[in-house]
Amino acid sequence: MALSRKKSSVKAGLPPGTLVHVGEKKTEKVRIRLIEYDEQGIRETDLDPGHDFSSPGERPSVTWINIDGLWDVGLIERVGLAFGLHSLALEDIVNTNQRPKLDDYEDYLFLVSKMISYDPSQRSLQSEQLSIVLGKHFLLTFQEKPGDIFDPIRQRLRNGKGRVRKMGPDYLAYALLDAVVDSYFLALENVGEDIEDLEDEILKNPGTSTVQRVHGLKLDLLFVRKSVWPLREIISGMERGESDLVERKTILFLRDLYDHTIQVIDTVETYRDTVTGLLDIYLSSLSNKLNEIMKVLTIIATLFIPLTFIAGIYGMNFKFMPELEWKWGYPLVILLMVIVGAIMLAWFRKKRLM
Amino acid sequence: MALSRKKSSVKAGLPPGTLVHVGEKKTEKVRIRLIEYDEQGIRETDLDPGHDFSSPGERPSVTWINIDGLWDVGLIERVGLAFGLHSLALEDIVNTNQRPKLDDYEDYLFLVSKMISYDPSQRSLQSEQLSIVLGKHFLLTFQEKPGDIFDPIRQRLRNGKGRVRKMGPDYLAYALLDAVVDSYFLALENVGEDIEDLEDEILKNPGTSTVQRVHGLKLDLLFVRKSVWPLREIISGMERGESDLVERKTILFLRDLYDHTIQVIDTVETYRDTVTGLLDIYLSSLSNKLNEIMKVLTIIATLFIPLTFIAGIYGMNFKFMPELEWKWGYPLVILLMVIVGAIMLAWFRKKRLM
Amino acid sequence: MALSRKKSSVKAGLPPGTLVHVGEKKTEKVRIRLIEYDEQGIRETDLDPGHDFSSPGERPSVTWINIDGLWDVGLIERVGLAFGLHSLALEDIVNTNQRPKLDDYEDYLFLVSKMISYDPSQRSLQSEQLSIVLGKHFLLTFQEKPGDIFDPIRQRLRNGKGRVRKMGPDYLAYALLDAVVDSYFLALENVGEDIEDLEDEILKNPGTSTVQRVHGLKLDLLFVRKSVWPLREIISGMERGESDLVERKTILFLRDLYDHTIQVIDTVETYRDTVTGLLDIYLSSLSNKLNEIMKVLTIIATLFIPLTFIAGIYGMNFKFMPELEWKWGYPLVILLMVIVGAIMLAWFRKKRLM
Amino acid sequence: MALSRKKSSVKAGLPPGTLVHVGEKKTEKVRIRLIEYDEQGIRETDLDPGHDFSSPGERPSVTWINIDGLWDVGLIERVGLAFGLHSLALEDIVNTNQRPKLDDYEDYLFLVSKMISYDPSQRSLQSEQLSIVLGKHFLLTFQEKPGDIFDPIRQRLRNGKGRVRKMGPDYLAYALLDAVVDSYFLALENVGEDIEDLEDEILKNPGTSTVQRVHGLKLDLLFVRKSVWPLREIISGMERGESDLVERKTILFLRDLYDHTIQVIDTVETYRDTVTGLLDIYLSSLSNKLNEIMKVLTIIATLFIPLTFIAGIYGMNFKFMPELEWKWGYPLVILLMVIVGAIMLAWFRKKRLM
Amino acid sequence: MALSRKKSSVKAGLPPGTLVHVGEKKTEKVRIRLIEYDEQGIRETDLDPGHDFSSPGERPSVTWINIDGLWDVGLIERVGLAFGLHSLALEDIVNTNQRPKLDDYEDYLFLVSKMISYDPSQRSLQSEQLSIVLGKHFLLTFQEKPGDIFDPIRQRLRNGKGRVRKMGPDYLAYALLDAVVDSYFLALENVGEDIEDLEDEILKNPGTSTVQRVHGLKLDLLFVRKSVWPLREIISGMERGESDLVERKTILFLRDLYDHTIQVIDTVETYRDTVTGLLDIYLSSLSNKLNEIMKVLTIIATLFIPLTFIAGIYGMNFKFMPELEWKWGYPLVILLMVIVGAIMLAWFRKKRLM
Repeated sequence: MALSRKKSSVKAGLPPGTLVHVGEKKTEKVRIRLIEYDEQGIRETDLDPGHDFSSPGERPSVTWINIDGLWDVGLIERVGLAFGLHSLALEDIVNTNQRPKLDDYEDYLFLVSKMISYDPSQRSLQSEQLSIVLGKHFLLTFQEKPGDIFDPIRQRLRNGKGRVRKMGPDYLAYALLDAVVDSYFLALENVGEDIEDLEDEILKNPGTSTVQRVHGLKLDLLFVRKSVWPLREIISGMERGESDLVERKTILFLRDLYDHTIQVIDTVETYRDTVTGLLDIYLSSLSNKLNEIMKVLTIIATLFIPLTFIAGIYGMNFKFMPELEWKWGYPLVILLMVIVGAIMLAWFRKKRLM
Repeated sequence: MALSRKKSSVKAGLPPGTLVHVGEKKTEKVRIRLIEYDEQGIRETDLDPGHDFSSPGERPSVTWINIDGLWDVGLIERVGLAFGLHSLALEDIVNTNQRPKLDDYEDYLFLVSKMISYDPSQRSLQSEQLSIVLGKHFLLTFQEKPGDIFDPIRQRLRNGKGRVRKMGPDYLAYALLDAVVDSYFLALENVGEDIEDLEDEILKNPGTSTVQRVHGLKLDLLFVRKSVWPLREIISGMERGESDLVERKTILFLRDLYDHTIQVIDTVETYRDTVTGLLDIYLSSLSNKLNEIMKVLTIIATLFIPLTFIAGIYGMNFKFMPELEWKWGYPLVILLMVIVGAIMLAWFRKKRLM
Repeated sequence: MALSRKKSSVKAGLPPGTLVHVGEKKTEKVRIRLIEYDEQGIRETDLDPGHDFSSPGERPSVTWINIDGLWDVGLIERVGLAFGLHSLALEDIVNTNQRPKLDDYEDYLFLVSKMISYDPSQRSLQSEQLSIVLGKHFLLTFQEKPGDIFDPIRQRLRNGKGRVRKMGPDYLAYALLDAVVDSYFLALENVGEDIEDLEDEILKNPGTSTVQRVHGLKLDLLFVRKSVWPLREIISGMERGESDLVERKTILFLRDLYDHTIQVIDTVETYRDTVTGLLDIYLSSLSNKLNEIMKVLTIIATLFIPLTFIAGIYGMNFKFMPELEWKWGYPLVILLMVIVGAIMLAWFRKKRLM
Repeated sequence: MALSRKKSSVKAGLPPGTLVHVGEKKTEKVRIRLIEYDEQGIRETDLDPGHDFSSPGERPSVTWINIDGLWDVGLIERVGLAFGLHSLALEDIVNTNQRPKLDDYEDYLFLVSKMISYDPSQRSLQSEQLSIVLGKHFLLTFQEKPGDIFDPIRQRLRNGKGRVRKMGPDYLAYALLDAVVDSYFLALENVGEDIEDLEDEILKNPGTSTVQRVHGLKLDLLFVRKSVWPLREIISGMERGESDLVERKTILFLRDLYDHTIQVIDTVETYRDTVTGLLDIYLSSLSNKLNEIMKVLTIIATLFIPLTFIAGIYGMNFKFMPELEWKWGYPLVILLMVIVGAIMLAWFRKKRLM
Repeated sequence: MALSRKKSSVKAGLPPGTLVHVGEKKTEKVRIRLIEYDEQGIRETDLDPGHDFSSPGERPSVTWINIDGLWDVGLIERVGLAFGLHSLALEDIVNTNQRPKLDDYEDYLFLVSKMISYDPSQRSLQSEQLSIVLGKHFLLTFQEKPGDIFDPIRQRLRNGKGRVRKMGPDYLAYALLDAVVDSYFLALENVGEDIEDLEDEILKNPGTSTVQRVHGLKLDLLFVRKSVWPLREIISGMERGESDLVERKTILFLRDLYDHTIQVIDTVETYRDTVTGLLDIYLSSLSNKLNEIMKVLTIIATLFIPLTFIAGIYGMNFKFMPELEWKWGYPLVILLMVIVGAIMLAWFRKKRLM
C-alpha cells in the first residue's frame, strides 16, 4: 500500500459543501441499480443517469439505490436533492479520501466505510470507499467502481429466504456492512499468507528486499487498522440505538458485527507483532551471518599468518644463518609449523571460536 | 502457536445466522452428556445425537448438557430450537474462530471462551473453544473435542460435597470458567519453563534458532493475552449483576475469579518483558562474540604483519645490502622482531585490547 | 523544523497580562483590513494603525477585522480595549509561542491556532500563529505576517455566493479554520513527497545524512501533530454547542471539520510509521552492506593467505630442500596451489559464503 | 527476582474456597500474637496454635491478632470461623501467589498486599504476602514468616504516644500499610544503589554479564511495580470512604499514603528509564569498541600490506632485474617504503581514521 | 540529574506526621519574611526564628509569610500550630522528596511544587521544593533555600501596580506558581541549548561520552516531566473552583497557567523525541564509520594480497622455473600485477565498494 496518491490539494480553498470528485476520472458510464422490495416481492431496475429521482415512491417497501461510479457529480447532486441530503454529506460521498464515519442527520444516517481487497499481482491491498445513506424507507449506496461484493446479498433478496426481505433498510445496511467486514477477513487471510511466505524467505534466503517487504506488510496492516477502527465506532454508534432509523431487532445483529470488527482488530495486532518479530529474526540472522564470516576469516588468518612469518624468516638472505646449513633444518621447520598450527587450532577450540 | 489456519473465507457471503462449522471436519460421533442435579440427587445420561431436546424438564433442578464436537450442525440447530437460542448464538457456537465474549439475550446468557492447553511435543499452545449458554434452570456447554478439564467438577457434583449441588447453573458456569482460568495458569507454567530453558540455551549455547524460539514464545504469550483479556471483561460483565440469571451469592465467587484473570494477565506481561529481555541478552551476546573474534584477529594480524614485513625486507635479493653480510645480522634481526612484538603487545595491553 | 528559537525567557518575571511580542521584530507597517458584510452587501476598508476602534458599528451585520503583524503592541491593546477583550487574551495574541487553545470569555470566544506552510527551499515546515476572537457580531483575526491563505474566503464574501454571506461570524470563523486545516493537508502532501524522495535515496544511494533527514521528517510530523491535536479539541469544544456564539446551523460544519482534523492526525500517524520503517530499511541496508564487504574480504583473504604460505615455504633458503631440486617441483607446487584454491572455493559455496 | 517458582498447578481442579497453602512447607511453630488496646491500656499475649478463637471479646477496645506462618491451614480455618470470614478470603490468605487486592465483605474489609525486602547476598528482591482483615473492632494480619517490619508500630502502641492508641483498627491497618510502603522505599534505595554500581561497571569494565544484570534489575523493578500498582488501588478504594469500617479521621492519612504509593511508582518509572538508558550505553560502548579494534587492524594492515608487497617484488628470483644490481637499489627501496607509509598515514589522518 | 540521593530510609518506621527534615542539614539562619498588604498599602518585616506566630492579624488584608530553609523543624511546627495546619502537611513541608500535590484541608489548601533551575557548571537541572499554604487571608510559602525567583512579584507588590495588590492570597499563590512554571521554561531553554550542542557534537566529533550525555538529557527531561505533570493536576484542581479559597476572578488566570503547563509538557515531549532521534543518528553514524573502515581494509587487503601472492611465487627457489630465466620475465610479471590490480579495482567500482 503506497502512500495515498489522491491529492487533497485540489480541494483547498473551495467553500465547504462543494462537490469535487477526488480520485481517478473515468469516462465509463455510471451504473445505477434500483431495487425495491418488501416481504411480498422484489423489483430490480437499472436506471439511466438522467433519471428523475425527485419523486421516490412513498410506499412502505424498501428502496435500495446503488450507484457505481462517483465522477458524475451532477448525478450525485440530483440524488442528494431528491432525498434531501445535506451538501456536506454529498461532498463526503465524492471525496473518496474520507475517513470512515457516521453522521446522524436525524432524517437519515450517513455512513462512510472502506471496502478492502487484495491485489495478488502487486501483493498489496486496494481500498474503495462505500458511502451509505440510511433513511426510513430507503437505502442509498455509493461505490467508486462496480464490484461483486454485494452480489450474495442481492441473491438473498431475490430468493426471499432468510430475514433480509422481512426487515427494513437498517437490516440491509447491516448486511452490507457485514459484507464489508467479511472483505477485511479475506484481505487479512491474504496478508497472513504473505507473512508466512516472508517467514520462509527469511529462514531460507533472506535478502536486501526483505526489510522492504516487512515494511510493506506493516503499512498494509496499518491501513486495515485505520479502516476498521472507525468502522468499529460506526457500528457501536448504530448499535447504541440512539437513532429511530435502527430498529431494535437489528441491534442484536449489529452487536454481532461489532464483535467481528474487534476480531479483525485483534488479528491485525497479532499480525503486526508477528511482522515485527520477523524483522527481529532477520536482523539477528544478519548478525549471525556476520559472526560466521568473521570466524572463518579469523581462523584462516590467525592460522596462516604466523606460519607465513616463520617461512619468511628462513627466506631471509643473511649470509650467516646456521639453521639453513643444517641437514634437518627444512624438516624441523615444517615440524615447527605443524606444531604451531596445532596449538592455534586447539586454542580456537578451547575459546569456542570453532 | 502458528498463525491461525482456520479459514474465515468459507463464511464470506453467507447470510448472518447461517451455521457453518469452522474447523477440522471430524467423523467421530459427537458425545452428548446430560447431567441433572439438585441438592438431593444427581442423574447422568449419555444422549444419542438423535435425541429429542424439545421437551426439557421444567423441574427446579439444574440441567447441564455438555456436547463434545461441533461438526454436527443439525444437532446444534435442534438443541438451539429446543432451548430457544438465537441463530446468531448458534452461529458463534460452531464458528470456532470466535473471540471470547458475553451476550445477554435476556432469557439466557451466551458466553464464548477459550480453553488453552500446552502441547509438549510441539512446545506450543493449543486452544479449544468453549461456548456456554446459561439459562434459569439449565446450562449448555459446547466443546470442540472431548477433554477431561471438567472431570473434577463432575466428580464434585457426584460427591454432593461443597457448594456446587446447592447452587444454580450460574455457579456451575462459574466453576467451569474457574477451570478454564486454571488451564491458563497451567499453560503459563509450561511457558515459564520454556522461558527458563531458553535462558539456559542463550547463556550456554545460543544459535540461529534462538530468535525464532523467542518469537514463538512471544506469539504464545500474545495468544494467552488475547484469550484472557476478553474473558476478564466477560467475568466483569457477569459480576456487575445486571442479569437476573446470576445470583448474588455467585457474584462473590466471580469477583474472585476476576482477580485470577488479572493475575494471568500480570504473569503474561512479566513473561513478555522477560522474553524481550532475553532477546536483548542474545543480541548483545552476538555483539560481544563478534568483538571477541575481531580482537583475536586484530591481535594476531597486527603482531605478525609488521614482523613478516621485516622478514620480507631481508628476503630481498639486492646485490648491495650490507646487513646481509654482517656476522650478527641474523641474530640482530631476530632481536629486532622480538622487540617490535613486545612493543605491540604492551601497546595492546595499554589499549585494553587484550 | 529546528527546535523553536523563540525565547520564552524574555517573558519570565513579568506580571501576567503583560503584552510582550515574542517573535521577530519587524518595522514594516501593520496591515489592518476591515470587512463589513451582511446578506445584502459588503464593504472593505484598509484601516490606519492609528484608527479609533472604540465605536464599532452596532448594526446586525458582520464585522471582520484582520490584522497582519503583531509587533505593534499598542495597536493590539487599543483593539482589545475597543472590543472589551481580557488582558490574558491580548497577551496570548502577541505571544506567538502559544499552544492552540479555545477560551470561552462568555461575551466572546478566543481561539489560537497554527497555520502551517511548507518551505521548499529548506524542505521544512513553517508555522504562523492565527488568533481569532469570535463575538456576537464581529470577528477579529490576528496573523504574524500577511498571507494569502484567506483570499479564497474573501473572494467568496465578495461574490456573495454560497453560504458565507448569509451566516454570522461563527460561520466565518469556521471557514477560516477550514482553510487552516486545508493548509495542513497541503503541508502533509509536501512531507509525503519528501518521504518518497527519501525512500528513493535509501534504496539507491544511502548516505550519512539519511538518518538526519529521517530525524527532520519526524520532527516535522511531530510539529503537525502538536498543532492539530489541540485544534481538534478546539473544534470539538465549539461543536459541543455550549456557547451561544456558535449557532446550530454552523455546528454541522464544525463536525465535518472535526472529521478533517482526525484525517490529518491519521495521516501524520501513517507517515510516522512510514518514516520509522525507512529507518529500519536504512539500518538493515547498512548491516547488509557490511556483510557484503566482509564476505569479499574473507573470500579473498582465506583464498590467498594459504597459497602465499605455500609460496613462502618454497622461498626458504635451506640448503637441503629436496623438492627444490626436482624437475617437476615447480609445476607440482602450482598444481597443489590450484587444488587448495579449488577446495577453498568449494567449501565457501557449501557454506553459502559466496 | 527469578520467575516465580510457586506452582499454581497444585490448585487446579480443586473446588473454590479450598484452603491449600502455596509456598514452602515449614515445620516450625506458627507464631500468634494477640494485642488488645484502647486509649487507657494495652495487653500483649502470645497465643497457642490450639487457642479457641471462637469468643473474641466484644469490648470497644481494638483486638489485633498477628499470625506468622501460613502452613497450618487448620489454624487459619478456625480463625476464619471465629471471625466469620468467607472461605474465599481464607483461600486467598494461604495462597501466597495472590495479587494485592481489596475485597469488601461488608462486615470486614479483606486486604492482600506484598512486603518487599532486599536480599543483599543475591542482589535481588524478596517478597512476602501480608493479608489484613479489618473488622469493626479487630484487625487480623497474616504473614508468611516472622519479621520485624511492624516492630516500630508495636513500640508506638506500647508507648501510648501518638495517635495510634486513640484510634480504631482502621488507623492500625493504615499504619501497617504505611510500613509496607516504607519497605518499598527501602527496597528501591537498594535497587538504586545497584543501578549506580552497574553504571560504574558499564563505564569501566563492561562484560558479558552486564546485560543479564540489566535484565535482572528490570525484572526487580517490574516486580515492585506489580506490587505497588494494585496497592495504590487498594488505598484509593479505602480512602474513597465507601466502607463504614474506615473512619473519616483516618481518610486524611490514607490520602497521604496514597501519595506515597504514587511516589514509589514514579521512582520505579525513573529507574526503569535509567536502566534502559544503561543498556543503550552498554550496547553503544560495544559498537565503539568494535570500531576501535577495527581501526587498529585496518591501520596496521593497510600500512604494512603494501610495504610487504614491495619487499616481495624484490624477493623475486628473476635473472634479469636491473634494480637488484644498482648500488643504491636497497636504500632507494627503503626510501620508497617510507614514502608509501607516510602517504598512507597522511591519508588516514585526513579520513579521520586515526 | 543523578538519581536522587536524598535517603528516604531515615523516615522508615517513624509514626506518620513526624517532622523529619529530609535533605542537607544547614546551619545558616532560616530567613522569615512577613509581607502584609492590601489595596492601600504594604508592610514588609523580617521576622526572627523565635517570633510568636500564634496571633496573626485578623484584618482583611493579605499576610504572606515566606520561610527560606526547612531544617529548623521546631519553627515549622510553631508556624503550623499558629495557622492550624495538619501534622501531615507539616511533615510534607520538611520532607523535600515530596511529589507535587494539592491537598484540600477545607480551611486552607496545601500545595507542594518543585522549582527547577539549570546549573550550567554541571550541565544539569537542580530542583527545590516549594510548599504553599493558601488560607482565607494568608499565604505561607516554604522554600529549601533563599532564591530570587519571587523578587519580581515582591517588586510588583511594592509598586502597587497591576492586579496583585487588589486581589487576595489566591491570586498571590497563582503569581508564585506562574513564576515556578516560568522557571520550567527557562530550564527547558537551557536543556534545548544542550541538545543543540549535542547535535553538533554528534555530527562533528562523536565519542564514547555521547550516549552518556544523551542519557543525562533524557533523565533531565524526565525530571521536568515528573515535576510538571502533577503541577498540571494541581492547577486543574484549583481551577475547577471546588474550594471557596479560590475566587472566580482568579480562575481565569489559573486556566491560563494551566495552558502554560501543557506547553511545558509539549516541549518536554518534543525534546525527548529529539534526543531519541539524536541517539539514532549517533548509532547509525557508528555503523557508517565501521562500514567505512572495513571498506578501506577490504580494498587494500584484496588488492595487495593477490599481488603479494604472485610475488611470492617468483620468490620460490625451485631449480627449474623457466620464467625466471626469461629476459622479459620481470617486466611481464609487473605487467601481470598491474592488470590483476586494475581488474580488482574495476570490480570494486562495479560492486559499489569504492
